[in-house]
Amino acid sequence: MYAAGDVRVEDVPDAGISAPTDALVRITRSCICGSDLWPYKSHAGDAMRMGHEFIGVVEDVGAEVRTVKAGDVVVAPFVASDGTCTFCEEGLQTSCREVAFWGAGGNDGGQGEAVRVPHADGTLVVLPVPADDALMPGLLTLSDVFATGHHAAVSARVESGKSVAVVGDGAVGLCGVMAAKRLGAEQIILLGRHPDRTDLGREFGATDVVAVRGKEAVTEVRELTGGDGVHCVLECVGEEASFLTASKIVRPGGAIGRVGVPQFEQLPGARPSFLRNVTVSGGIAPARAYIEELLPDVLEGRLEPGRVFDRTIGLEETPEGYRAMADREAIKVMIA
Amino acid sequence: MYAAGDVRVEDVPDAGISAPTDALVRITRSCICGSDLWPYKSHAGDAMRMGHEFIGVVEDVGAEVRTVKAGDVVVAPFVASDGTCTFCEEGLQTSCREVAFWGAGGNDGGQGEAVRVPHADGTLVVLPVPADDALMPGLLTLSDVFATGHHAAVSARVESGKSVAVVGDGAVGLCGVMAAKRLGAEQIILLGRHPDRTDLGREFGATDVVAVRGKEAVTEVRELTGGDGVHCVLECVGEEASFLTASKIVRPGGAIGRVGVPQFEQLPGARPSFLRNVTVSGGIAPARAYIEELLPDVLEGRLEPGRVFDRTIGLEETPEGYRAMADREAIKVMIA
Repeated sequence: MYAAGDVRVEDVPDAGISAPTDALVRITRSCICGSDLWPYKSHAGDAMRMGHEFIGVVEDVGAEVRTVKAGDVVVAPFVASDGTCTFCEEGLQTSCREVAFWGAGGNDGGQGEAVRVPHADGTLVVLPVPADDALMPGLLTLSDVFATGHHAAVSARVESGKSVAVVGDGAVGLCGVMAAKRLGAEQIILLGRHPDRTDLGREFGATDVVAVRGKEAVTEVRELTGGDGVHCVLECVGEEASFLTASKIVRPGGAIGRVGVPQFEQLPGARPSFLRNVTVSGGIAPARAYIEELLPDVLEGRLEPGRVFDRTIGLEETPEGYRAMADREAIKVMIA
Repeated sequence: MYAAGDVRVEDVPDAGISAPTDALVRITRSCICGSDLWPYKSHAGDAMRMGHEFIGVVEDVGAEVRTVKAGDVVVAPFVASDGTCTFCEEGLQTSCREVAFWGAGGNDGGQGEAVRVPHADGTLVVLPVPADDALMPGLLTLSDVFATGHHAAVSARVESGKSVAVVGDGAVGLCGVMAAKRLGAEQIILLGRHPDRTDLGREFGATDVVAVRGKEAVTEVRELTGGDGVHCVLECVGEEASFLTASKIVRPGGAIGRVGVPQFEQLPGARPSFLRNVTVSGGIAPARAYIEELLPDVLEGRLEPGRVFDRTIGLEETPEGYRAMADREAIKVMIA
């Protein structure tokens, strides 16, 4: 990405092993993230390599790599982590002491042909299916979007019988609906204004759709919940207005799980949330912590988060993929 | 309280039963709260009755009251609640559908001779000791200050082996130290600059004291925790600067339990707390939810939260009590 709106597919030096803990992975599937759209809107400065969600086949590994080998089909979470530090052991791999972000600090990006994976043992998860398996779209969502929706649900303390609102009908919000249902939510209210997306949200488990914003949305959610608001809000947008809505539809004693990258500096509502004992939790999702837990439901076909992909393009068409997502023509674009 | 700095002791109409769920309580002990100092600093508008922490003897009860009777010694949490609504059942009595605040909406204040207690069954807890028992100071802290410190600790997810920082060396902060120790914290760092208070904090369980503020405090706490910060922060002040300090000393994946009434509108640090998955929880403490849990440790003398009272005055001296607390001459003033 050279600048806002300027994504190019270019030849770069071949990826290769440089540390004994590295793996070299040939990418078979990747995708474009809603969070890629923030720089697509506003990026200035040095060109960046893009892409942080991928599945691929291991081509080679460094001398110290133990858990993956050439030929393995692997999924990568959206950050690399060593798997051994305190934070990794606690399941917060996004705060790993050796954390590495795809595309940053000289790392390869996931929207490409191949990638050097630092800390391969800590980062990659082997998938017990061939690279062309029909389950691939769903498995690819473990890299970020389904794991992030799940993180929102966990952070919002979703559990059996709870009422839930999901703010945002993008791919993460839709996965949040699925994650909330998976965790036993009784009522799931999806806030979104794109009928194609909210229809999919209903299929994923939404019991109600609120297709308005701001004060009107707050009123509708309150009406749907006997006046109290919901126990759990999954904030899957990251705008100040969406966070404000989240803070107004959460019930006293409830929790907001936020996973939308905040495009604002301060969290509004310090006093009302104090008087109502609202918890604000969440953040950048430690996808690596959740892959094993979510994998069986995808592998065994019980959940189909891969349905968030409504367009598939080739690598050369990546700039067009960005445009389609930015223009809301596509929910989420797969590169395969 | 007539205005900032203007507290007067005046005759008001006698308290009395007006609803069948009321109790009439003659107050034997009450006290001045750190939160009373906010209006003492800035109050403008109508005169308010003050005081929301008290112990007393039941003089009379309405026809429907079942759990307390004349002659019972009782402690009241700092809000009255019906004990039967959804929120009360969930232990969030501060959001009770029938919540009543002492001194507000025509209710009597706790800094007085007697008080009408709405929803006596839901509100009052009977104490199995006489009104002049030596344990009274400790029991009085169950009304607010110890319960609030405990709420900070619970909200900050204190548990066995965790590292904790307590921001603020007022009575709530000191009770927060005690509550954190009670819940099994391994390291308890007290941030405060008043040696008499932090000395008491050490006796309550603080393992370290940080007597500086702002950036210097952040540096010291990081040094005391191997660079990472603490798992749990108890924010017991409520100023923007203290919240900012809290947000900078909390470890990735950690939690801030805030109980200082916020004197600001927005929570700073929306992005850093997102990247570090920091949880912000807490609020106005549902003291009623905690009294039974905390009572045995006070009754049996294992904990002495009553030591936060370092001055005792008569009711007529209440204005002087406010002055002494506002000038930091006293940690917390008891009226007996």
